[in-house]
This record gives sequence, structure tokens and C-alpha cells, in this order.
Amino acid sequence: MKLRAVTSNRNKAREITAFFEGIAEIEHVPMECPEYRDDDVREISRMKAEYAYAKIGRPLIVDDTAFCIDALNGFPGPYAAYVHDRIGNRGILKLMENERDRKASFITAITLATDEGFFVFTGELEGEITTAELGTGGFGYDPIFIVGNQTLAEITTEDKNRISHRARALHVLKEWLMNDKDKNH
Amino acid sequence: MKLRAVTSNRNKAREITAFFEGIAEIEHVPMECPEYRDDDVREISRMKAEYAYAKIGRPLIVDDTAFCIDALNGFPGPYAAYVHDRIGNRGILKLMENERDRKASFITAITLATDEGFFVFTGELEGEITTAELGTGGFGYDPIFIVGNQTLAEITTEDKNRISHRARALHVLKEWLMNDKDKNH
Repeated sequence: MKLRAVTSNRNKAREITAFFEGIAEIEHVPMECPEYRDDDVREISRMKAEYAYAKIGRPLIVDDTAFCIDALNGFPGPYAAYVHDRIGNRGILKLMENERDRKASFITAITLATDEGFFVFTGELEGEITTAELGTGGFGYDPIFIVGNQTLAEITTEDKNRISHRARALHVLKEWLMNDKDKNH
Repeated sequence: MKLRAVTSNRNKAREITAFFEGIAEIEHVPMECPEYRDDDVREISRMKAEYAYAKIGRPLIVDDTAFCIDALNGFPGPYAAYVHDRIGNRGILKLMENERDRKASFITAITLATDEGFFVFTGELEGEITTAELGTGGFGYDPIFIVGNQTLAEITTEDKNRISHRARALHVLKEWLMNDKDKNH
């Protein structure tokens, strides 16, 4: 089976390709989808998939990830990439100075678009915001997001791909693809 | 002449109605337009207008405002409303601690949609970020945005409507409406 992973982010494409190795062939389509502003990452993912499917017309997946910090009322949420680009981890750590509640979570919503319809799968990873950047792996907020006793930038890509929000969403998608779809719907 | 002001923000609608008093009748249409994520506020405004015009089919205006802080690489930009809602002026002041460069600007892009096409008008207001909130008027970032020696929250609505980014964009629009359109295009 062949799936197109529609994303302009090479890091994501690499993570997805590694995940499906031996199960599905992933073709990276580096297309920019217009992204709606919406507070719900599931909705954003679905709208992107509709756009991409209208253009490509073949089975594809798109994903969208939100990064939500409890003490900041869910900020940066679906604008995680923009916010990281502008104020970086330094900005987030500054906003979190003196905050006791360090809880945060990543939520990924993956939409599978096929001629049978659009199916949204989500995965969540809960953790906490560190007080300083730790580790050199990963990307984005990984160095300031700690799960257990290590940040996502301190663990190997393989370990990250096992526990990450995206991995969890991909896992649900994989189960769905491997089962008889009719049983689920 | 009657113009529909399409916005879910009552403060904006009030500012626009006050501005056009005696020139055009403004009908507030409190419709939510889906908003694309885009770094260019002109583009966001135009896309919203296309959506609204497809629904309403009568002359209308929509606007979109970005708030750009130089030292934060343009953050929060077009996500001004979301960011204000989540981290507030307190968050911005925290991010700006120890920053020497306090320059910031509001940019409003208003799109007029008519059966003759879509026309985008912009207005900009330059100022600086204060080190504390000052004043009780206005809304949003007004208490931390200083122009000359007062914040936008310290001046009257009338004064704000004379100098604001939105007023400047509305002014260009008003001139355009009052002149023979054919001369301009």
C-alpha cells in the first residue's frame, strides 16, 4: 500500500516514513496546505486533508500538532510552529518563570483521506515544561518538554518515535489500516 | 450607501460605525469567517472577504489586524487576538523584560468586497511597548502600546479613532469611496 504524506516539514515526513517501514510505502509530498486558524487541531487537520485530497485525489495523510501549556491557557496551541519560530524555547521559558504548574501536552491529529472518506486519528503526550533547555536531539519544543526524567531532545529518535504524540496517532492509524475497515465503521 | 461590516468583534464594529457616521450606513454582520494562517495580514483579510462575499453577495468590508513587536521577530503578528486571549499583556511584558528595542506596530488590512472586485486598504500605527500596563480605555494591547507619551488606553475613543491603524486604513477606504472609483483603477 502506498500513502502520500503531505507536509512541508521534512522532520515530520522522516518520522512518518520510519514509523511505517515494512507496513506501507510513504511518499513525501512537500506541499504547503493553507491552514485555517482554529482552536481545534482535529478540525485543522481535517480541513488540510480536504484541501490536499482535492488537489491530489489519492490516499494521503496530513497531520497537525498542537502544543498546549496548562499555565498559559493552552498557549501556543495550534500556533506552535509560528510561536516557536518567533520567540523560541527562550520565550516559552520566560513566560513560564515562576509558574508552579508546568504541565503541558502535545496533541497530534492525523487525517487519512481516501475515496471512502476522511478519518481523524489523535495521539497525545503529556509532560512538563523544564526550567532550561536540555538535550540536543529532536526539534522545536523537544528540549523543554520533559516526560518522566528526560526531555524529548535527550532520547533517541527511535525512543521518541515509540512514545511521541505523533507515534500514538500513527499507531491508531496503523491498527485501523491493518484491520478490516468495515468492522470499525 | 450601505456597507456590511463583517466581524465577530463588537469593539471593531463600533469603531467602524463611529468612523463612517454621516458617510455610510454600517450594518454589523456578526459572522465568523474562517481565517487562514498566513504571515501576511493583507492576504488574510482578502481571503476572509472572499469567504464572506460568497455567503452574503452584497458590498461588505472585513478587516484583519496584526500586532508586530520588532524584538520578538514580529510576534504575535496575525495571531494577536489568540495570543492576547491566552497570555495577555502580562505575557507580552514578560517576554519584553530586558529588551531595549521596544518598537512595535499595529497593521490593519481592510478588504472591500463589491461586485467590481476586492480592494485592500492598509493602515499602520507605530509605537513602543511600555514596561507596565497604563490606562483603562481601549481593548487588547492598547494599555501596553504607547504612541508619543500616552498609551492607546489613556486616550479617548475619539482620539484613538483619529490616529489608529484601523482609522488610517478606513481613511484610505473612505477617500476611495468618495472619489470616482474609475480614476483609481
